[in-house]
Amino acid sequence: MKRNAFYAQSGGVTAVINASACGVIETARKNGRKIGKIYAGQNGILGALREELFDTGRETAAAIAGLRHTPGGAFGSARYKLKGIDENLAEYQRLIEVFKAHDIGYFFYNGGGDSMDTAHKVAQMGRKLGFPITCIGVPKTVDNDLPVTDCCPGFGSVAKYVAVSMAEAALDVASMAETSTKVFILEVMGRHAGWIAAACGLAGESAAEAPHIILFPEIPFDEPRFLERVSDTVRRHGYCAVAVSEGCRLPDGRFLADSGTVDAFGHKQLGGAAPAIAERVRARLGYKFHYAIADYLQRSARHIASAVDVEQAYAVGKAAVELALAGENAVMPTIVRKSDQPYRWGIGKVQLRRVANREKTLPRNFISKDGFSITGRCRRYLAPLIRGEDYPPYRAGLPKYVKLRNVPVPRKLSGEFVLK
Amino acid sequence: MKRNAFYAQSGGVTAVINASACGVIETARKNGRKIGKIYAGQNGILGALREELFDTGRETAAAIAGLRHTPGGAFGSARYKLKGIDENLAEYQRLIEVFKAHDIGYFFYNGGGDSMDTAHKVAQMGRKLGFPITCIGVPKTVDNDLPVTDCCPGFGSVAKYVAVSMAEAALDVASMAETSTKVFILEVMGRHAGWIAAACGLAGESAAEAPHIILFPEIPFDEPRFLERVSDTVRRHGYCAVAVSEGCRLPDGRFLADSGTVDAFGHKQLGGAAPAIAERVRARLGYKFHYAIADYLQRSARHIASAVDVEQAYAVGKAAVELALAGENAVMPTIVRKSDQPYRWGIGKVQLRRVANREKTLPRNFISKDGFSITGRCRRYLAPLIRGEDYPPYRAGLPKYVKLRNVPVPRKLSGEFVLK
Repeated sequence: MKRNAFYAQSGGVTAVINASACGVIETARKNGRKIGKIYAGQNGILGALREELFDTGRETAAAIAGLRHTPGGAFGSARYKLKGIDENLAEYQRLIEVFKAHDIGYFFYNGGGDSMDTAHKVAQMGRKLGFPITCIGVPKTVDNDLPVTDCCPGFGSVAKYVAVSMAEAALDVASMAETSTKVFILEVMGRHAGWIAAACGLAGESAAEAPHIILFPEIPFDEPRFLERVSDTVRRHGYCAVAVSEGCRLPDGRFLADSGTVDAFGHKQLGGAAPAIAERVRARLGYKFHYAIADYLQRSARHIASAVDVEQAYAVGKAAVELALAGENAVMPTIVRKSDQPYRWGIGKVQLRRVANREKTLPRNFISKDGFSITGRCRRYLAPLIRGEDYPPYRAGLPKYVKLRNVPVPRKLSGEFVLK
Repeated sequence: MKRNAFYAQSGGVTAVINASACGVIETARKNGRKIGKIYAGQNGILGALREELFDTGRETAAAIAGLRHTPGGAFGSARYKLKGIDENLAEYQRLIEVFKAHDIGYFFYNGGGDSMDTAHKVAQMGRKLGFPITCIGVPKTVDNDLPVTDCCPGFGSVAKYVAVSMAEAALDVASMAETSTKVFILEVMGRHAGWIAAACGLAGESAAEAPHIILFPEIPFDEPRFLERVSDTVRRHGYCAVAVSEGCRLPDGRFLADSGTVDAFGHKQLGGAAPAIAERVRARLGYKFHYAIADYLQRSARHIASAVDVEQAYAVGKAAVELALAGENAVMPTIVRKSDQPYRWGIGKVQLRRVANREKTLPRNFISKDGFSITGRCRRYLAPLIRGEDYPPYRAGLPKYVKLRNVPVPRKLSGEFVLK
């Protein structure tokens, strides 16, 4: 019995989330005896709620293949967390109604912890409302904070971007330090977990090499110790390169990024962690500084994606469809590490309820005792994830990213669904 | 009569300044009948003043070849402008003294406008003090603001980096805009000239594509018109991507970056142009925003260097040596454009005095009438400069950048030279 499939992207997009979409769609297309149409949600789950679906069947094989090397979310993503079933039953009912109208028997939800929670609830609701639907999560997050899976597609490419950027910027700063900038700060993502900050540590191998200091969200910012380490590093090596997580906090729990800056009108300035650090360096040590805020550049940098990450992103998409066809429900494929060196990995699976709403922060033994760098154990974990280059094709000096046609599926339901 | 050569890097380094060093050294090595030792200054001209020279003869051919793909300044660079001869004769005398002590007959100075001025003066001084020295400038600046030469090595790679980064970040923002960030701002370098900001414009081809707005240093910031354009763009396209030059100014001449932010202690904050823009967007329009500050990442990003830029950087280094051997003095090789499409270029030359201390800003006809984007003419000029990829080799997921041995040359002079 052939049924249609629905795929949606959720939360912050990555350099490789479309590679997962590619894995889902190509694998579903190969299984045309069991899966009919493959729909995608316009702007993620909102597309399902509003009955705004795209028919991926209208895309050429070449366009779908091009998703593998195209960053961003090809169908649009959304930061939209469905509330609990008790709080907002209407949303779940609407989802099931739309799925029913379009004979959708498979729901592939590509996102982080929140999305796994949603997929899990949709599976429960389907059963409860007499419309069984196979719900499979597809892991994605640059933050690498999903539990159970060894790593998370999206992270490896950010990790590679920040490690390469730190290595390159440090060469620049080192060569100018005698007469110019002595302290360079790179701010990276990771509101709650320091995985991305840790990846900056791959840029150097010894204490002499950048980054000389990493500031993790897991370690409260100790200003005097930090400043002492900065001046010590400048004395020893001529310059100091710092990686700071946007999630780094003061001992009182406030984000560094929120600490103290006000604009000319007295409004609190939405600063970054890097300027907050830089200001302290300037005020207390007087060194010339520069800072970079990588922001979205880091999570969209498909041009320097990790080949391992791209492969894993595709693999979890493919595995999601295979799990669905094997009769699994409410599960998510995981990356299972089999060995560090040589790096070997495979695909496993986990129940969605075991992944939902749980965050995996950096283990304390991945951070050095002094709190300013990564341990050998952390390095062994991270190193394989940035391996290999998977360059997109170029035309006239720019990556040739695909743009899908995104042809809407005719509506079957009357009336608009208004989001609360 | 064989004489030694001295090479020094000056000012802000680039992703390809070492490619010029590679061109100089490899070409000089091939001309061993005329050029003896090839020395490099530790930290640029400071190395000459302090008699801190490196013997590049102690580097392997492989290491020198590796400079072609290594960013930063391999010998150290310096922001140090020699004063006028009348103001500080002692420095020029010292340079000639050091050159004499080491029998240096060729001075290759790799830098921007200031450095060309210095090289010009050294040539004059040599003649005056009875120690003739051949002084050849090697053009370098990410700002692309040197006159006469069609473009400047270093610029093409920054241009490629910012265009690729803008294209990638825009895909990210576009896919999230429905529920998240609506305005994205990328701050790029260019304190006085908008070449780098203009290069962001290569990311998109139509008005619908990012960047929707470019803010140039050449066009005073008009806040009401800017905000109107932002809200109009968000209405039309769902999001708005802005590229802003760090050198963008208010109508009263102050840098946007200096406008208004003070820290908790009432000190003026050394902000960026991007946060200043973002704050206005937040306060007046209320859109969710994000900004990235590329800072040193843009000028050290050898991983995404332009192949044309790398080739030209090498070519001007090579040409500098060839000009010296052909008996030229006080000149700089230039890039001469022969045609746009297909792009063809060759090497010319210009007298240093014609280059020294002159800045080439973006012509008004490279900027659209409304001041917010680039013209077709600008696009035709810029497009060839980002062509081609010239990837560095990788090991374990990171670029394999070379580190020279930098073996010091024994001193011949007694006493320290104290910089004023």
